[in-house]
Amino acid sequence: MLSGVGVSPGRAAGPVIVVAQPAGEPPAGPPPADLAAEASRIASAAEHVAASLQSRADSATGEAKQLLETTALMAADPSLRSQAEQLVTTKQLPAPRAVYEAAASFADALRAAGGYMAERVRDIEDVRDRVVAELLGIAPPGVPELTEPSVLVAQDLAPADTAGLDPKLVLALVTEEGGPTSHTAILARALGIPAVVAVRGVLAANPAQLIVDGETGAVEVPSSPVTPFAAEVSAGADWNGIGTTSDGLRIKILANVGSAKDAKAAAEAGAEGVGLFRTEFCYLAATDEPSVEDQHAAYAAVLAPFHGKPIIVRTLDAGADKPLAFLNPDPEPNPALGVRGIRVSRERADVLERQLAAIVSAAAETGAQVSVMAPMIATVEEAAWFADRAHAAGIARAGVMIEVPAAALVAEEIFSVVEFVSIGTNDLAQYTLAADRQLGAVANLNDPWQPALLRLIGMIGKAAQAANKPAGVCGEAAADPNLASVLVGLGISSLSMNPSAVRRVGAALAKHTEDYYRQVARAALVSHTTADAKATVHAMLS
Amino acid sequence: MLSGVGVSPGRAAGPVIVVAQPAGEPPAGPPPADLAAEASRIASAAEHVAASLQSRADSATGEAKQLLETTALMAADPSLRSQAEQLVTTKQLPAPRAVYEAAASFADALRAAGGYMAERVRDIEDVRDRVVAELLGIAPPGVPELTEPSVLVAQDLAPADTAGLDPKLVLALVTEEGGPTSHTAILARALGIPAVVAVRGVLAANPAQLIVDGETGAVEVPSSPVTPFAAEVSAGADWNGIGTTSDGLRIKILANVGSAKDAKAAAEAGAEGVGLFRTEFCYLAATDEPSVEDQHAAYAAVLAPFHGKPIIVRTLDAGADKPLAFLNPDPEPNPALGVRGIRVSRERADVLERQLAAIVSAAAETGAQVSVMAPMIATVEEAAWFADRAHAAGIARAGVMIEVPAAALVAEEIFSVVEFVSIGTNDLAQYTLAADRQLGAVANLNDPWQPALLRLIGMIGKAAQAANKPAGVCGEAAADPNLASVLVGLGISSLSMNPSAVRRVGAALAKHTEDYYRQVARAALVSHTTADAKATVHAMLS
Repeated sequence: MLSGVGVSPGRAAGPVIVVAQPAGEPPAGPPPADLAAEASRIASAAEHVAASLQSRADSATGEAKQLLETTALMAADPSLRSQAEQLVTTKQLPAPRAVYEAAASFADALRAAGGYMAERVRDIEDVRDRVVAELLGIAPPGVPELTEPSVLVAQDLAPADTAGLDPKLVLALVTEEGGPTSHTAILARALGIPAVVAVRGVLAANPAQLIVDGETGAVEVPSSPVTPFAAEVSAGADWNGIGTTSDGLRIKILANVGSAKDAKAAAEAGAEGVGLFRTEFCYLAATDEPSVEDQHAAYAAVLAPFHGKPIIVRTLDAGADKPLAFLNPDPEPNPALGVRGIRVSRERADVLERQLAAIVSAAAETGAQVSVMAPMIATVEEAAWFADRAHAAGIARAGVMIEVPAAALVAEEIFSVVEFVSIGTNDLAQYTLAADRQLGAVANLNDPWQPALLRLIGMIGKAAQAANKPAGVCGEAAADPNLASVLVGLGISSLSMNPSAVRRVGAALAKHTEDYYRQVARAALVSHTTADAKATVHAMLS
Repeated sequence: MLSGVGVSPGRAAGPVIVVAQPAGEPPAGPPPADLAAEASRIASAAEHVAASLQSRADSATGEAKQLLETTALMAADPSLRSQAEQLVTTKQLPAPRAVYEAAASFADALRAAGGYMAERVRDIEDVRDRVVAELLGIAPPGVPELTEPSVLVAQDLAPADTAGLDPKLVLALVTEEGGPTSHTAILARALGIPAVVAVRGVLAANPAQLIVDGETGAVEVPSSPVTPFAAEVSAGADWNGIGTTSDGLRIKILANVGSAKDAKAAAEAGAEGVGLFRTEFCYLAATDEPSVEDQHAAYAAVLAPFHGKPIIVRTLDAGADKPLAFLNPDPEPNPALGVRGIRVSRERADVLERQLAAIVSAAAETGAQVSVMAPMIATVEEAAWFADRAHAAGIARAGVMIEVPAAALVAEEIFSVVEFVSIGTNDLAQYTLAADRQLGAVANLNDPWQPALLRLIGMIGKAAQAANKPAGVCGEAAADPNLASVLVGLGISSLSMNPSAVRRVGAALAKHTEDYYRQVARAALVSHTTADAKATVHAMLS
């Protein structure tokens, strides 16, 4: 019996497929006995890798197909191959080492070329790792092609690992590393696949089969073979599209979006609006600040599907794990505790003003009901400073994110200067528990079910009700139907989530009364551990 | 009128002396016209630097004298000089560049030698920077020899900058960078010198004189010359040595210590005991875990001056800015939010058990009343885990540090499993405000006067009174008499501080009643800003 942090609900069981890690840097010796024979191994290994990638590309679609085809072309490229062959004959290197070194010089050249070419470095490294694995006779890195429904077990999953993943064949995801807001967790919730992260020792245990509970975090190695299964998680097909408790308390069910594509998916999923529009995508694509015109066009494309509907635009959250060269030039010892969000805006108010102007004009063009909010607010002063600028730019509804514990503790005063707040549970958990969301080793602490975090959210809920102003949640916590029920009981009036969770959460909230959710929340608040809180709430809601 | 963060109280005014930064890497060209003449400049510059360091050493005492003498010897060393001279003649380098490069190869050799030699790298760099400055005809880096009482202005001060500083000649310290827990701040409070940190633009303003308020953080450039002054901060000479409010509420005045030398100073200063004994010194000296016997000896030397008196030993706080090779092998993206304190102990319970055994035997030998507490507790589970182990080791009083916001929010439950808590305001402020204590750019946020932080402390104080168990403060906040008054009003029952602050704080607390401190605390809690909180409390207490 292993255990970790359940990050995507549902139970499943089945055979285990391990996602292999790259082999790393192969040794430079001993020199091969027959140099010509060693060199000739490279061509056949590269061809085998190219063919296997192409065959996966043939059965994939969309972005995944394109990614796999590009990688197959790179693997088949004769120049990488001939350079590696030369290294075998001239430097007497073993074939895996020769491929590794040849790839390094290609990668350097791509990096030096910059721009689009530099972005291909990751691809050449992927080809390198696959050809090296083929030469060493070990499993290729990344997710193998699945032939039957399986439980995927990995150190952690990167975005590239999951391209072309067929959700119908993945029963569950289990990782050694990662936390509730890691890529694995977000992907699993988006696809509705049960997932448990931070399961120490699962790779060493090398299980043939696993039984996974994505809610409790339990991961069981069955003592005798089990029949694969995947217990269905309610998809919310019966939700009527308007968020309410069973006794009619209105809870807006909104979506988190970060691109025009997301916005379209959110509208199609039935979201009543957007609770968090992350504007970083517009800045991350460029090396310099985008022009007001470019920002206008990018924002209008996201706002368009929400004509007449509410949409909360978060102003630029640069810094921490999303540094921007033109705004965050200095390295920091702890970037998560550094100059990010509103702290950048206060140093560069001109950048904020141009963004607000672009938002105002995009709102006018699309007819969406736009509000704005600022990230990383810690004090009343900062909230007032931001609200003043937003109002001056012509935006009637200005709010702030509450993701720093200090802001939660002065929520009452913050409500006196803004029209609404939105709680970012991912960062609020990270700071409240002093546990890095990027770090698997502290994932058990960084859990949105921590009673301490729920108490802080409860203080915000109380302040909201006293001020008669709305407090929403736009962190990953809102996508978990049980946790969403607790949030409603704590006084939260809107929930914003991954579009794929909208119907499931909307349907779940319609099952009980506001008063019952208050009882559920009280039970969670007085729990001593996250496990107790989850078990108690699960029992009360099922 | 400039402003920053006041970190050491008192008002002063006087002429400004700027602490120069090193010049950095000098250019490698153009080649000098007369190589022999250029080379000959090196010897006279080095001799001048050696003589000036030796003359400062002559008038210094103790560690400062030793440090200055060692550096003078290095500057006079003929081998560095002759290598630099050769670089001028053979590589046609300008003298400053030649010194820079010769020093680099010396530093590499010292580094390679390891151990004591490697620790001299910083000294050779200091010599290098001084000789380079002499050759360039600019001010030598570091604090110049003061000839009259002055206000020191610097980017930031490192420990080496302040060796040999004569506190009688320093009216105030003002820095561009730094925060309330930076070296500058701690030094200033230890010496009782007014100090303001994070004063953006003070170096660029290049003032001839400054008027400094170490309480409000105001730094004024006078429009007409002022007569230098230093308003005295009460030294507490009249304190009777037993901490109480004027109406007799007992508040223990304790000291923070980290070595046997500190412990002696604390006992001499009249501390009633030790509220925080940092045990890291014992581990930092070694590359491996010290033996139980070595730990016993090190702890007994600290406990000895406190026979029959209370002393709280904090178990090892490895990680973050104090990584230990044998316990913290992996780099982390945000070390302050990583595996540190109790999180390390839970992975390596054997290390904790050996430390507890050494503490128990040192306590038995010295007859000090020893309690233990664990750092970085975030949850009730962690607190219970630690208390169980401490009790099992034979320690009756087990407590925890509250420095993670989550622990403050579940203080009531934590009191059900421990005998006491101690609040670490430095880290608690850092996490509550999500503002790195090492980073000058966020020093205005990371302020112990933040009303949000005071509210969190107030919750702990209430929980302590409900449980009828003590809650102390052992962060830098306790050393500020005004803030100490607020803490007492919030229900804190002991204050532990730098030994130099003991008498001042003890005397200050005897001035008003418990009930009045409650009123003072309430006024601080409802302030909207740190400036309001400071001003209101200052007015109520003076």
